[in-house]
Amino acid sequence: MEVMAGPAIVRGFRFAGVSAGLKSNLGVKDLGLIVADAPVPAAGVFTTNRVKAAPVVVAQERIRRGRLRAIAANSGCANCFTGRPGLKLARDSSAAVAREVGCAPELVAPCSTGVIGHLYDFEQYRRGVLEAVDNLSPDGLENFATAIMTTDTRPKMASVTLPLRSGAITIAGCAKGAGMIQPNMATMLAYIVTDAMVAPAALRGIVKRVLPLSFNAITIDGDMSTNDTVMIMASGAAQSRALAGRELNTFEDWVREIARSLAWQLVNDGEGVTKLVSIEVRGAHNSAEALRVARQIANSPLVKTAFFGCDPNVGRIIAAAGAAGVAFDPDRLELVVGGVRIAAHGALIVEALAQAQKKMREREFRVILDLKQGRSRAVMLTCDLSFDYVKINAEYTT
Amino acid sequence: MEVMAGPAIVRGFRFAGVSAGLKSNLGVKDLGLIVADAPVPAAGVFTTNRVKAAPVVVAQERIRRGRLRAIAANSGCANCFTGRPGLKLARDSSAAVAREVGCAPELVAPCSTGVIGHLYDFEQYRRGVLEAVDNLSPDGLENFATAIMTTDTRPKMASVTLPLRSGAITIAGCAKGAGMIQPNMATMLAYIVTDAMVAPAALRGIVKRVLPLSFNAITIDGDMSTNDTVMIMASGAAQSRALAGRELNTFEDWVREIARSLAWQLVNDGEGVTKLVSIEVRGAHNSAEALRVARQIANSPLVKTAFFGCDPNVGRIIAAAGAAGVAFDPDRLELVVGGVRIAAHGALIVEALAQAQKKMREREFRVILDLKQGRSRAVMLTCDLSFDYVKINAEYTT
Repeated sequence: MEVMAGPAIVRGFRFAGVSAGLKSNLGVKDLGLIVADAPVPAAGVFTTNRVKAAPVVVAQERIRRGRLRAIAANSGCANCFTGRPGLKLARDSSAAVAREVGCAPELVAPCSTGVIGHLYDFEQYRRGVLEAVDNLSPDGLENFATAIMTTDTRPKMASVTLPLRSGAITIAGCAKGAGMIQPNMATMLAYIVTDAMVAPAALRGIVKRVLPLSFNAITIDGDMSTNDTVMIMASGAAQSRALAGRELNTFEDWVREIARSLAWQLVNDGEGVTKLVSIEVRGAHNSAEALRVARQIANSPLVKTAFFGCDPNVGRIIAAAGAAGVAFDPDRLELVVGGVRIAAHGALIVEALAQAQKKMREREFRVILDLKQGRSRAVMLTCDLSFDYVKINAEYTT
Repeated sequence: MEVMAGPAIVRGFRFAGVSAGLKSNLGVKDLGLIVADAPVPAAGVFTTNRVKAAPVVVAQERIRRGRLRAIAANSGCANCFTGRPGLKLARDSSAAVAREVGCAPELVAPCSTGVIGHLYDFEQYRRGVLEAVDNLSPDGLENFATAIMTTDTRPKMASVTLPLRSGAITIAGCAKGAGMIQPNMATMLAYIVTDAMVAPAALRGIVKRVLPLSFNAITIDGDMSTNDTVMIMASGAAQSRALAGRELNTFEDWVREIARSLAWQLVNDGEGVTKLVSIEVRGAHNSAEALRVARQIANSPLVKTAFFGCDPNVGRIIAAAGAAGVAFDPDRLELVVGGVRIAAHGALIVEALAQAQKKMREREFRVILDLKQGRSRAVMLTCDLSFDYVKINAEYTT
């Protein structure tokens, strides 16, 4: 079995993506709906940013009960830093969806992404909802994935069908954005749906455990968005009783693979990205320390410009590692870039640098830093810092 | 009285800067000496990076006793990530200085800056020391400041003479680098000398208290170098007894001003810098929280590219603030850029953005974020993230 980077039919769900006119470029899709045939188990994780968008506040409060009927996501406006009017707009918007879908407003989770500091027009939104509900379709996932795009150049989707003994189930997901790389489009949204039957508490555990190894293991610029949202809904339409035991573990493994595929697609479509680099830190005392070191390297502007310049710059990598606040012995460090060992026993291997430089010309390569003091590891997926990143983010104006 | 951005004569000290051939571009100054007429009180602070250069390890151990006779600083080679041979080289080097100056090796603090991962040639260094000692002169501070430059485009110096009741004293300093902005030149070095009489313990306290408001209040790329060093020496040549009481406070105030001037000069000479921006966070519960928020804003690549693009991007600034891990109420935020209020009561002031954009075309401006929940504040000096930053750091190769 393999995760496919595309949409799928997931029994029990219908999707739509329409143009409600919320984006300035007319005719572009900007409002998406995911509607389950009935209220279904749901779970979510949200940004820890102190500045939370209004729809994040509302969705977070609603998903706590463990059930949703629909998700309504718009692009073109983040509805963030909008105070009380923003909260009212998020509540009114999901109430409009609830009315058309035929459920209680508390069963609709609103999501927004786009420019910070502005409200969208409620009438336009409401008319968009009418059209979206008319367009709901089991094969509408790609439309939904397209409607939530901001500066993304393509929709990101992933799906897999698992032939479990209790019946074949499908897991499908989509995402938009990439960290806070998008100008002030706020920002990462990801949705996963499945026709497996999973209890709300189990879903909640899965989404939390999957996150550190998928969406939280990528970085583009180290910035944290105000709207980051990951939600999962399980219709149960494919099964007669809830997954348990080994099958539940298999399900979790594949949710993680779907999330990893989506996360990889996000970085790959990041602004100005010319290199995809996985930073692996090995030999740490524990995985939290390994992650701290990996994250410091993955976010260092000096390391990222060196990637852009295909420069196997040992000094920048170990200086970033040393700044992570994690104790290690520099004299034992080993560093491998693109499969080439360029430092060992705390010293440069000068004659290997040319070979590493050659490997860094490829679009994807790995950096492995071994601290040689324990058995724990962590991996972060990052990208380079290129002219185009600066260009895109400097030329965008509010 | 005012701090001058230039050198001064400081009684009790002689300086030199010569070319020892440690840099690849021949004839360029790369070895500097500061020699006191006798062992004098000294204090220092050093990088907290886990990867410390060999001379940092040696200097740190020596300055603990509170007295130094000389500082020997070279550019062109950081002597970092060089293991035991690096430590031996740092000790041999300062022993060579001690022999020529006529003091115990423990009274000489070595410093190095330049490329990471390499050793310099000891014989060249030793010959350079002979020449430097021959060239020692009371008015040699500019030569010293020039010898420690790496990719700096000009030496950074600051001085002031204070007419204290106990006698006129002079404080002078110099610095090189700017955070870890220099490719893998490792990196920030600063030296302050005075002819005031100050006890070692008092010096130690002063250098620690001055740091958060000067060198630690600047950032170029958030990277922490392996060689960062700030040292202060007080010859006492201008006075017959140690400064105390109000005069000691005045002395500390002006050491801080010297350090602030040097720090400002570092950012101003940073690679690719087109904007100097002071980020002030006000209305915090305490100054540690204010500093955390200011630092997060000052280091955000999105905020820094917005500065480059003269974009008064409220969304990026408040999203960075919200990611600092400090609790505040977004609905009370007030934001002033270039003297123009562009957000208040947690909402954008759209009609003010054009005016703020105009102010951001200047090379220097201020950003003031008021959290409106307390009386504490903090200021960070930062710069923009420009094409040239990427260019310089991507094109440099090891």
